[in-house]
Amino acid sequence: MTTITALDDLVTALPVGVVITDPDIIASYRQDRAFDPDAGTAMAVVRATSTADVQAAVRWCAANNVPIIPRGAGTGLSGGATAVDGGIVLTTEKMRDITVDPITRSAICQPGLLNAEVKAAVKEHGLWYPPDPSSFEICSIGGNAATNAGGLCCVKYGVTSDYVLGMEVVLADGRAVRLGGARLKDTAGLSLTKLFVGSEGTLGIITEVTLRLLPPQAAASTVVGSFASVHAASKAVLEITSTIRPAMLEFMDKVAINAVEDQLKMGLDRTAGALLVAQSDAPGAAAAAEVEIIEAAFTRCGATEVFATDDPDEGEAFTAARRYAIPAIEKIGPLLLEDVGVPLHKLPDLIDGIEAIAANRDVLISVIAHAGDGNTHPLIVHDPNDADETARANLAFGEVMDLAIALGGTITGEHGVGRLKKGWLPDQLGADVIELTQRIKDTLDPQGILNPGTML
Amino acid sequence: MTTITALDDLVTALPVGVVITDPDIIASYRQDRAFDPDAGTAMAVVRATSTADVQAAVRWCAANNVPIIPRGAGTGLSGGATAVDGGIVLTTEKMRDITVDPITRSAICQPGLLNAEVKAAVKEHGLWYPPDPSSFEICSIGGNAATNAGGLCCVKYGVTSDYVLGMEVVLADGRAVRLGGARLKDTAGLSLTKLFVGSEGTLGIITEVTLRLLPPQAAASTVVGSFASVHAASKAVLEITSTIRPAMLEFMDKVAINAVEDQLKMGLDRTAGALLVAQSDAPGAAAAAEVEIIEAAFTRCGATEVFATDDPDEGEAFTAARRYAIPAIEKIGPLLLEDVGVPLHKLPDLIDGIEAIAANRDVLISVIAHAGDGNTHPLIVHDPNDADETARANLAFGEVMDLAIALGGTITGEHGVGRLKKGWLPDQLGADVIELTQRIKDTLDPQGILNPGTML
Ligand SMILES: Cc1cc2nc3c(=O)[nH]c(=O)nc-3n(C[C@H](O)[C@H](O)[C@H](O)COP(=O)(O)OP(=O)(O)OC[C@H]3O[C@@H](n4cnc5c(N)ncnc54)[C@H](O)[C@@H]3O)c2cc1C
Ligand SMILES: Cc1cc2nc3c(=O)[nH]c(=O)nc-3n(C[C@H](O)[C@H](O)[C@H](O)COP(=O)(O)OP(=O)(O)OC[C@H]3O[C@@H](n4cnc5c(N)ncnc54)[C@H](O)[C@@H]3O)c2cc1C
Repeated sequence: MTTITALDDLVTALPVGVVITDPDIIASYRQDRAFDPDAGTAMAVVRATSTADVQAAVRWCAANNVPIIPRGAGTGLSGGATAVDGGIVLTTEKMRDITVDPITRSAICQPGLLNAEVKAAVKEHGLWYPPDPSSFEICSIGGNAATNAGGLCCVKYGVTSDYVLGMEVVLADGRAVRLGGARLKDTAGLSLTKLFVGSEGTLGIITEVTLRLLPPQAAASTVVGSFASVHAASKAVLEITSTIRPAMLEFMDKVAINAVEDQLKMGLDRTAGALLVAQSDAPGAAAAAEVEIIEAAFTRCGATEVFATDDPDEGEAFTAARRYAIPAIEKIGPLLLEDVGVPLHKLPDLIDGIEAIAANRDVLISVIAHAGDGNTHPLIVHDPNDADETARANLAFGEVMDLAIALGGTITGEHGVGRLKKGWLPDQLGADVIELTQRIKDTLDPQGILNPGTML
Repeated sequence: MTTITALDDLVTALPVGVVITDPDIIASYRQDRAFDPDAGTAMAVVRATSTADVQAAVRWCAANNVPIIPRGAGTGLSGGATAVDGGIVLTTEKMRDITVDPITRSAICQPGLLNAEVKAAVKEHGLWYPPDPSSFEICSIGGNAATNAGGLCCVKYGVTSDYVLGMEVVLADGRAVRLGGARLKDTAGLSLTKLFVGSEGTLGIITEVTLRLLPPQAAASTVVGSFASVHAASKAVLEITSTIRPAMLEFMDKVAINAVEDQLKMGLDRTAGALLVAQSDAPGAAAAAEVEIIEAAFTRCGATEVFATDDPDEGEAFTAARRYAIPAIEKIGPLLLEDVGVPLHKLPDLIDGIEAIAANRDVLISVIAHAGDGNTHPLIVHDPNDADETARANLAFGEVMDLAIALGGTITGEHGVGRLKKGWLPDQLGADVIELTQRIKDTLDPQGILNPGTML
């Protein structure tokens, strides 16, 4: 492979401090939040400060045939930012500029800025950047674009792809190209911007995004419903989404409710089989009408308790509780984290099927969901020191994806395929679409240096 | 080239009546609504009735190295559906099935259905398909997907791409693949669905689309403003869009107002320099608040007359008037139809620049616009029997695109590049992005049989 001398060339090509070879630091960039046990160790970490730095690093990797793993904040849940032995990890964390244009309602933004920082910067101009992954305080906007991140408000406001108008991207040969721009409508040429969104670092490294912004969201009213069974709750989800577009419609099962209650002690009903948290942000009196529709659906579907509030802080407390579900369940034990989605009417079948898999494999699977999108996160808890349980958990992990595919669903609604789910991608897409994908990958990255082992 | 014997194979491979060789019918499929003077004559028209028909036709074209031109309803304004000598025109007009799923709020739809028919079919289920090109009564949903069509409600509700969740597409080698599906969130693999949207028949032939639907739009309130100058009107556009998201914000200049008034005689102010038609569909009392904001902006920017109505029929009359602008101006003379867009704050510069080009080239250019998106349609009127005027019109046609590019804009906001604008695409995208586009085209269509001469 590559010699130390070659790495010296990279160090020289980049500003002082950009190339890091300290083994402790390198070790801290081995994994993202999927903690892929097969992670390798990079030969260096590049903390790029500019597009030019990214170009120099990619050119060096191309010349030396070294894999390059793009990395934002490393909060990914599918192992897409996993180091490989002898490769380079390129992190965008130092690229943090943002310029907001309130008239075009757009922002030009470097990839390393956190989602929460983007939201805050545009808020200063009275504007709103909707996409809100639960990890919004710790994930980068570049990572969001690379994974096409979702979140809680997607049920009404769409995913990251809907807000990326343009980007600058460094290609596999080191050229930087601009795609799209601050134009609300633009159909000149192929939709390359959209192709790069969600490409998980396999086609290029995103060095800038142009984001579409909205006027501020109206204050939301929140409705919380407790249900005896998961089934009753998922029936309520279908009733609501076939009538109105809630601004949020989130789901937690009993395990999740109790895990969150253990941590936050906010008085959630520990006996409930499922909890739904819905919001309406319709303006003025329209919100009250939507709240009524939601309450009625909850009641009709057998909710044991329905609580509605117009108080934004109270509403935010429930939203925060739902957002906190993953970390809370992680306290029970390490997780295998799923991200399966189904066409909405298959939601009850998916939830039944997951229950059956958990029983059959004798593992604990807690389900939380962006229910209004049909996008669920079955969380498989296992003890890594128990080899047998771990083996059963791994079997269940695959079976949940098989089930989603069988129901006409997807193995990933928002986290991406990464390394952990790529084994199931051919089953979902079919051989022809995989071949099509591979052809595009090969033509854009003929040497295969960009994030090899992710997605394909 | 291809012999008659080979064409017999195609006739045999397809159901009776699908392959048409009648010269009169073939002649009627030479051009779309751009009336490209360089259009050729196909050797046959294939009126496909199924995906299998499309596959058979593409396979035959691949085997015989014959160009195939996909065609929907032929309303395109950039020459994307222009026959080439010795090629095949494949029309989807007979593929008209639709299935609506009210729970997932989606529809699966064959490409030949007209946009208006899609809207009507989903309305029966109480749902709404937003994209509304002015041509909605005469253009196909497949053509909309292939061009990423826009329309009047895009300013609030987005373009066709935002509503295409999945598709079936026949590739250049005749394979049919399914991309995406009725899943509201799905980030498994590359975003191939979005890549095919707007690809203008150059990457594959769309044989089915899965559409995302919304609950019905609330009744809209309409505000119409007359302005002495185009400048005053474009200032009002910026004021409104930096405050709220109107459901529509359309613009007509003096020539367009008078051309429409000549035809419709609805009492438009013929002396006005510009007219804006805005709508709010905010629910309940929120609409009144938005209407007030729009009225105030109109007045502050010097509107000579402001008229507001909650009556849907009255509102629709103004919308219809705006939609009728292109046909009305066509009565003055044949048009060169532009589709340039700019970042919103450059709208006044664009309009000034177009005025200067018209004066300099001594041609009549009328401007209508989806103003809230920054997407304008300068319409260059010329007399084809006047060679000198036609030459000047052609010069102006290019200069308007040069101007848009210089202002950081696009040569096409919604009509596509087609054959008429491809000469300007490299100036907008740059050599590197063209090369990237060409690489994707080559890898998906190595023989170059899919709509050659369009876009690239
Ligand atoms: C507690 C918790 C909750 C979460 N909730 C959600 C949620 O609700 N919705 C959701 O969608 N996700 C969620 N996630 C997952 C994660 O936060 C998202 O996938 C996020 O978009 C990753 O951003 P990042 O900056 O951390 O990217 P990383 O993890 O660093 O990278 C993610 C992928 O993108 C690639 N990449 C990163 N930056 C670039 C770049 N500039 N150019 C090209 N490729 C790049 C990487 O190679 C990798 O494949 C959650 C994670 C946690 C830990
Ligand atoms: C009066 C008037 C007003 C208009 N207003 C608008 C407007 O407001 N907004 C707007 O966006 N457009 C507008 N248009 C333009 C036109 O209607 C749109 O571009 C429309 O999407 C074209 O649809 P079509 O079915 O007529 O496609 P065609 O003209 O038949 O084809 C258009 C392009 O798509 C390709 N194509 C068609 N079907 C398929 C398929 N199934 N698979 C692959 N490729 C295919 C063709 O090869 C061609 O490149 C207007 C046109 C007219 C005449």
